[in-house]
Amino acid sequence: MSGLRAGEAAVELPAASDAGVYFIGTIHTPWPTRQECPRRGSLDGPICEIVVDARWRQALTGLAAGMRLQVLYWMHQARRDLALQTPFRRPTLGTFALRSPARPNPIASSVVELVAIDGAVLQVRGLDCVDGTPLIDLKPDLAPRE
Amino acid sequence: MSGLRAGEAAVELPAASDAGVYFIGTIHTPWPTRQECPRRGSLDGPICEIVVDARWRQALTGLAAGMRLQVLYWMHQARRDLALQTPFRRPTLGTFALRSPARPNPIASSVVELVAIDGAVLQVRGLDCVDGTPLIDLKPDLAPRE
Repeated sequence: MSGLRAGEAAVELPAASDAGVYFIGTIHTPWPTRQECPRRGSLDGPICEIVVDARWRQALTGLAAGMRLQVLYWMHQARRDLALQTPFRRPTLGTFALRSPARPNPIASSVVELVAIDGAVLQVRGLDCVDGTPLIDLKPDLAPRE
Repeated sequence: MSGLRAGEAAVELPAASDAGVYFIGTIHTPWPTRQECPRRGSLDGPICEIVVDARWRQALTGLAAGMRLQVLYWMHQARRDLALQTPFRRPTLGTFALRSPARPNPIASSVVELVAIDGAVLQVRGLDCVDGTPLIDLKPDLAPRE
């Protein structure tokens, strides 16, 4: 496999996928490339815009400014075959011990604050992804119940 | 569309999906049907078992008992076309204002405590899904940064 750093290991991906994901909107952020993205989103970070496809507009019913939402998105630029990874200046770890974008299913989960909603356009704070990232889900956030 | 309750609305799903998901393991729980599942997982709930496929075993490197993990799984029994939903004894809301399994991409996110790990088998607390649910990701949990 190409492009592996010291300690990294890749596996052969399955020949076929097991289920299909629909992209349901697009996320607009101030970061045009992965290199420019913050390492982790912050609830006092810049406002980003989530544009939900017209097909799913009615599914936003009940969302209101001030809510905290969980956003799932598809990290479309990430490789999917790494089992061991060596992040910059950090030790080698298994993919499931990291939140790196490179993973068998490149799904990221971020908690955001919904600042405003106008039709199918949501202004939120808390994201850290590259501009143009496909949206795959929105849910009301729940903290874990102890 | 069939099977809609009062107030519910379904959309026509896209003809094709946009990306493919790999199932990377299987979740074993005490609940053989959706009707028997708890409404929400609890960190003091019963121990459930996550069996990771051999292909991804090395990706578990670095996980250890006591860690809190985010588990993503595919709710394979859920319908995907609902935009408005009327949960039992609750008002009608948009799909994205609910954590219902029925959503365009039926991906659930739960935070669990890793009780033990033996090879590719993880014992965890905090799940609420049906026995046999496909696993799609594991990540170290992060609380939102204020």
